[in-house]
Amino acid sequence: MIAVCDAGTAVAGVFTTSKTASASVDWCRTQVSDGHGRAVIVNAGNANAFTGQRGIVGVQSVVGEVASVLECSSTEIFASSTGVIGEPLDADAIVKVIKGSIANATPDNWLEAARAIMTTDTFPKLATAKAFIGDLPVLINGFAKGSGMIAPDMATMLGYIFTDAPIPAGILQKLLYKSVERSFNSITVDSDTSTSDTVLMFATGQAHGAGLSDIQSEEDPRLDQFKEQLDALTLNLAHQIVRDGEGATKFVTICVNGAESDRAAKVIAKSVADSPLVKTAIAGEDPNWGRIVMAVGKSGQAADRDSLIIWIGDTQVTEKGYVHPDYDEQVTQGHMKGDEIMIKIDVGIAKGSATVWTCDLTHAYIDINADYRS
Amino acid sequence: MIAVCDAGTAVAGVFTTSKTASASVDWCRTQVSDGHGRAVIVNAGNANAFTGQRGIVGVQSVVGEVASVLECSSTEIFASSTGVIGEPLDADAIVKVIKGSIANATPDNWLEAARAIMTTDTFPKLATAKAFIGDLPVLINGFAKGSGMIAPDMATMLGYIFTDAPIPAGILQKLLYKSVERSFNSITVDSDTSTSDTVLMFATGQAHGAGLSDIQSEEDPRLDQFKEQLDALTLNLAHQIVRDGEGATKFVTICVNGAESDRAAKVIAKSVADSPLVKTAIAGEDPNWGRIVMAVGKSGQAADRDSLIIWIGDTQVTEKGYVHPDYDEQVTQGHMKGDEIMIKIDVGIAKGSATVWTCDLTHAYIDINADYRS
Repeated sequence: MIAVCDAGTAVAGVFTTSKTASASVDWCRTQVSDGHGRAVIVNAGNANAFTGQRGIVGVQSVVGEVASVLECSSTEIFASSTGVIGEPLDADAIVKVIKGSIANATPDNWLEAARAIMTTDTFPKLATAKAFIGDLPVLINGFAKGSGMIAPDMATMLGYIFTDAPIPAGILQKLLYKSVERSFNSITVDSDTSTSDTVLMFATGQAHGAGLSDIQSEEDPRLDQFKEQLDALTLNLAHQIVRDGEGATKFVTICVNGAESDRAAKVIAKSVADSPLVKTAIAGEDPNWGRIVMAVGKSGQAADRDSLIIWIGDTQVTEKGYVHPDYDEQVTQGHMKGDEIMIKIDVGIAKGSATVWTCDLTHAYIDINADYRS
Repeated sequence: MIAVCDAGTAVAGVFTTSKTASASVDWCRTQVSDGHGRAVIVNAGNANAFTGQRGIVGVQSVVGEVASVLECSSTEIFASSTGVIGEPLDADAIVKVIKGSIANATPDNWLEAARAIMTTDTFPKLATAKAFIGDLPVLINGFAKGSGMIAPDMATMLGYIFTDAPIPAGILQKLLYKSVERSFNSITVDSDTSTSDTVLMFATGQAHGAGLSDIQSEEDPRLDQFKEQLDALTLNLAHQIVRDGEGATKFVTICVNGAESDRAAKVIAKSVADSPLVKTAIAGEDPNWGRIVMAVGKSGQAADRDSLIIWIGDTQVTEKGYVHPDYDEQVTQGHMKGDEIMIKIDVGIAKGSATVWTCDLTHAYIDINADYRS
């Protein structure tokens, strides 16, 4: 997959926090600080992670070829790789097809682009949005991949977002960072962070009707609707990844309120979302709220056992450190039989809140990941 | 299970770090600072966790009855509960049988004691050791439970250690804390920390041959052999818990060297041990070292990708940020087919080291935990 943008496009990016990040991630992280992005090239099947010096040379030859065809600096070319870790990337095979691919590029080929970066995803993940910046109508399009099936080591999350809005790179970076924190960074399938996670956003500034006076701050009120639409788009793509999570049969929302801070709330929500005992209970359609208590307790964040309140669906389960007097397990059992599970937790300490999305842990997850790589 | 010690017994304890700890844990944590322990009483089937004020009153009535039969202060009586979270404890049923149980108590009933605290463990977990403190021969006996099967919410870890050595409570606490850190606190079955984890150690001081001048420091060289034997005993019990882990088919040792500190090494080792992708690969007998790279990377601890070395069994898999030139996957595949899996990791930063033990993640784990509580 190669996406080419107009000259003068601003770019922003957010990358994995892994200490064993792939060669492509290292390249992107270095280049994104310049804020100039002409193209992004993605290969599926090989992560180019843990491939030593050879991996670095491979990225350089791929971005070098794209830059030479587009007659720009290679520092404006971004690259991602997704697939098996530790196998050498055949960069030559990619270099060979770059010229032809760019020559044949057509606008609006979004669905094909989303398909091209799939590994073992079961469906392509696309989203689109419109917004006004002042009087200027702009478009935001994005696609992503994530959480493949069958072949192991392929659970990398990649996302690419494109807009014709005229937004400078520095501001784009701030908008993207904030948006990713509440979308892609708020989902978990199995708690395993990839070596290749990447979200890149390009703003070409080609929106019609120009005449927009420069946007100089991310707090500019003309960006309000754009931010809202960007957040909705990243959340939409993130939810598609959870729904396509390995072996997933249920889409689970975990809302935490009343924590010491928003950060603490997210740690608690992820502790619940990543707990194998909670996830297997959901797979078994068991409203096992004792395990939710356990997962809140193990998070290490402040919690007041005696003011902790848990809801499953719309049903309040606990009160004053104990089961609620009116609690009827038949009602929560009914909720657990659905495909969309809601768990709400009030920690009872302060006002921090966060929402995290996850899926259940099923036999299919074991099947997918205990199979031998082949 | 009730264990009664002689008057004058010193006690030490280490407890769960959960913020939603059970009423019994709260009681023990408060009393252990006095250092006096006459008895410990344990019930299985109900964790007395998240049971509000009623849970606290329950513990008080149980320890009160034991204290009244033994004619001592209730602050010398310790209690543990293991089982389902959030159901009221029927303390009266326990209180009723205390007098008879103590009247019928016999010495050396270790196997029955280990059996009495099982929930869904598949075997009782016992260990014994001898040591000399100076010229004084002493005994250490211990038993534990952990990681039950079938009934959910029962994966609590409890351990009780008894010695006739004359060791003051303050020193006993230091020895126990250190020993637990490298044994019980270095195992993980599914990363879910219980609300009830408890290890208590009692030193009666009844060893024959007394005449031992007082031990006033945990650095006293006369304690060397005792420490060694205590460490071997706690490790033995901890390993028995991993071997009986829910759904486990493989016993996995993860050794990390070369980390920034021992603490960092343990975080990395636990990141590998708790990774569902690593655990399912082990279940599938797949020497999938790319997932080990991923788990080191996500730990958040310093690591140098290009000096990271991974061994599976005795086979060196990686070198200089890439697969080792002589690596033969058939050899590591052979190792993965065994019951005892060894993964060694050198992070290449400094000299911190740690070892953690775990098991694989299998279909049986899902079966056990997705079943409805009943």
